[in-house]
Amino acid sequence: MSFTQSILEGNRLALARLLTQAENDSAEGRAALTELFQYTGRAHLIGVTGAPGTGKSSLVNQLALYYRKNTDKKVAIVAVDPSSPFTGGAVLGDRVRMRDLSGDSGVFIRSMATRGALGGIAQKTASLVQVFDAAGYEIIIIETVGAGQSEVDVARLAHTTIVVEAPGLGDEIQAIKAGILEIADILVINKADRPGVENTERALRSTLELAHPTKRVVRHHGATMSMAAPTIDSTMWIPPIVKTIATEGKGIDELVQSIAKHVEHLRQSGDWAARDHARLGSEMDLLIREALMDRFLENIPQKKYDEMIEKVANRNISPYEAIKLLLNGNLK
Amino acid sequence: MSFTQSILEGNRLALARLLTQAENDSAEGRAALTELFQYTGRAHLIGVTGAPGTGKSSLVNQLALYYRKNTDKKVAIVAVDPSSPFTGGAVLGDRVRMRDLSGDSGVFIRSMATRGALGGIAQKTASLVQVFDAAGYEIIIIETVGAGQSEVDVARLAHTTIVVEAPGLGDEIQAIKAGILEIADILVINKADRPGVENTERALRSTLELAHPTKRVVRHHGATMSMAAPTIDSTMWIPPIVKTIATEGKGIDELVQSIAKHVEHLRQSGDWAARDHARLGSEMDLLIREALMDRFLENIPQKKYDEMIEKVANRNISPYEAIKLLLNGNLK
Repeated sequence: MSFTQSILEGNRLALARLLTQAENDSAEGRAALTELFQYTGRAHLIGVTGAPGTGKSSLVNQLALYYRKNTDKKVAIVAVDPSSPFTGGAVLGDRVRMRDLSGDSGVFIRSMATRGALGGIAQKTASLVQVFDAAGYEIIIIETVGAGQSEVDVARLAHTTIVVEAPGLGDEIQAIKAGILEIADILVINKADRPGVENTERALRSTLELAHPTKRVVRHHGATMSMAAPTIDSTMWIPPIVKTIATEGKGIDELVQSIAKHVEHLRQSGDWAARDHARLGSEMDLLIREALMDRFLENIPQKKYDEMIEKVANRNISPYEAIKLLLNGNLK
Repeated sequence: MSFTQSILEGNRLALARLLTQAENDSAEGRAALTELFQYTGRAHLIGVTGAPGTGKSSLVNQLALYYRKNTDKKVAIVAVDPSSPFTGGAVLGDRVRMRDLSGDSGVFIRSMATRGALGGIAQKTASLVQVFDAAGYEIIIIETVGAGQSEVDVARLAHTTIVVEAPGLGDEIQAIKAGILEIADILVINKADRPGVENTERALRSTLELAHPTKRVVRHHGATMSMAAPTIDSTMWIPPIVKTIATEGKGIDELVQSIAKHVEHLRQSGDWAARDHARLGSEMDLLIREALMDRFLENIPQKKYDEMIEKVANRNISPYEAIKLLLNGNLK
């Protein structure tokens, strides 16, 4: 049986091998992904993001458990840890997480320790997601840590983005600064047994109204808008706020219901296809940039490139001038 | 007087205009930066990063105040807010921050609301920093929010990277996950009057030893290493842990001393030049990628590109195949 055939038939060892190849962006990985691409497009991609300390990992754990207990869908988890430029991240994640889900062959967990390269996280995550999608994992949860640009980029990969907050983690200014509320399809207040949960909910509601001014307007004019064509339906989704206590499994059923409603909304509004399209478009954009850079570096002697950086470092020439010289000397 | 001349002579309006041009990466901005580049390389770039809620902004505020009161150096602050894909961030930052520093013509504060483009944050920050450097700001503080990849990238810009923690913000696993400890030249425990400060310090010390195994070894063999050549000096820097209460201005003098020691270390070890070199190298890398992509998009009809994405979205062709076709059809 061929390598890709093994993956389609659920061989976990082959899957693990391809995941590694995809993460390393190896030639074998690209070849297999090219073959397998036709089998993708079936999975529901769920992004889970939020600041450290919100209990994201527990929530992802519980979500996976819920889907495994109540559906026959296979679940993949891609945990994107922020890059450590020296040793790579993902130190304890797997072990902590595996406790509840280990032994279930319908679950596959992959922690990703990304290393440095700009655009690397989004591109590698996209590849891993494609592998899982082709391998028949119908629920793929992408968990990202933190609240930076890379998280926003990764969230763009998902059909449904869940932003996790917790009571008592800084004030409203922080929430606005973080800016990721605006990418939320569903808001979760985890650790909802903690004091301050009402304040967090109030702050989230007012921030939501700042972040989605068009949606607030839509809500005010609900009666009129309900007669409009389904094409404007995409503006009608108001992110619900779901309270959970992940460590006790509380609120997970409600969260799963909200996710299902969002899927229904995506299907009816045409946003499912639109997000798919946008995601593949930005993936291609990244791949083209890489390919162009590779080609450029192949065509230029390393020594000439280093000399140019040296000139820039000595302030003999500006970066823009250096690049003009490099590009015109080699690709004109 | 020419535009660039005005900037060199300290005209704040001209400076503000060029900052906007640099952030928008406009042709005028590039031209002015090209002219001004020869005047850069004098500033000390200090990166300040850490999770939300650690009080970074107050700390940056206090640092700037300290340098203004105790030196004759001009201070610039570049606050990098995470991107909001919809409205742009940086909502309240300026106003909150300006209270203490406003009215001092030796201080210039710039909040940056970055928008989406991969690599955009690092590239734009590099441009703003160059502008301030040319304009004679000898201390440039780059403040980043969050703990993601983009923060690591921005930290790479700095000569000295300060990572800010605070007591009671999650546990050791979170600290390891965040992974940014490994980029720290100086660790600050802010809000050091809060309970749990000893635990935070202990956790940081043990994480530091995980993060810098080579440094621990160096410390163990200190007697032997002290006879070695100064070129290996760069492994000798053990990130100090400084406790501060920024809102009361406590610990700032100690922090400034640590920064000064780090500068001395950078100068003696040759790391100052090495970091400068590496920074300009990655800046050029980003600029080349942009230039290559611009050239590619100029040479390909939008319609053909869109059709290709459509084929990929319909799973008629894989992304890798699509890119091969696009590249060979246009740049061979």
